[in-house]
Amino acid sequence: MAENNYKITAEPGKQEITMIQEFDASPELVFKAYTDPELLVQWLGPRDLTMEIEKFDPKQGGVYRYVHRDNSGKEYAFHGVIHEATQPKRIVQTFEFEDAPGHVSLETATFEELPDGRTRVTSRIVFQSVEDRDSMIESGMERGVKDSYERLSELLERMTVKH
Amino acid sequence: MAENNYKITAEPGKQEITMIQEFDASPELVFKAYTDPELLVQWLGPRDLTMEIEKFDPKQGGVYRYVHRDNSGKEYAFHGVIHEATQPKRIVQTFEFEDAPGHVSLETATFEELPDGRTRVTSRIVFQSVEDRDSMIESGMERGVKDSYERLSELLERMTVKH
Repeated sequence: MAENNYKITAEPGKQEITMIQEFDASPELVFKAYTDPELLVQWLGPRDLTMEIEKFDPKQGGVYRYVHRDNSGKEYAFHGVIHEATQPKRIVQTFEFEDAPGHVSLETATFEELPDGRTRVTSRIVFQSVEDRDSMIESGMERGVKDSYERLSELLERMTVKH
Repeated sequence: MAENNYKITAEPGKQEITMIQEFDASPELVFKAYTDPELLVQWLGPRDLTMEIEKFDPKQGGVYRYVHRDNSGKEYAFHGVIHEATQPKRIVQTFEFEDAPGHVSLETATFEELPDGRTRVTSRIVFQSVEDRDSMIESGMERGVKDSYERLSELLERMTVKH
């Protein structure tokens, strides 16, 4: 089981969320896991949902859309556009949950090289309002984040040759 | 001279700016002025700068880039991507000043129909941090906003047949 020591910060009254997690893999590999649809589909989202990526084009102006489905077939669809994808440093993209149309957030993920071949990913999400931010938290976001980070750690562990 | 009664709100400690302006033209026409490069170039930015639009594609995933130049030839370049452009209701786009790379904001402009063929445009810009927001204000943003709204009012007046 991969380690999991993520940190989520959401100060009261602010319209942002910051999430930090470290991974036992290089920035190149972690960045790849964030931008290759065949890898992304293996880790993004809660464990009990399946993910289908309809499109995902990790470049400036690229559009993405994906759907999470639960056992009963209920769907949760998301889409956005890529402002920047600079390998292996930074991804900046918009994000919209289609059940809350018109509520858009901006997510910046930075990939920082650490000693011993590790990587720190800092994701900062800014929302159009404090209310939007709080709704996201109340929707049970943390479970999805926790599962995602765990699943990504496990995926990277499978992909990394251990010495 | 067109009227000018814009309102800019930037509460201390928050990472957003809200700007509201009303125009004596229909939402369709105002939206067109925001999304047609041949019109946009006539009003966006301070009066003493010229504007050159390198690309501007007002659709989901569309990329834009434009440059403002002063008399001495000094350039201020900006780029971003369009998350949504729903005629004549809403535009959501990212924004980055190329002299401050990596600092990205998200701007939502909504076009609201008012009585007597008027339109209220509400622009909400959210920044990655309070510091980014404050830097934007300190850069002299208000002069550009004031000039832009005045110039847009004048352009719309020229475009509108008066009864």
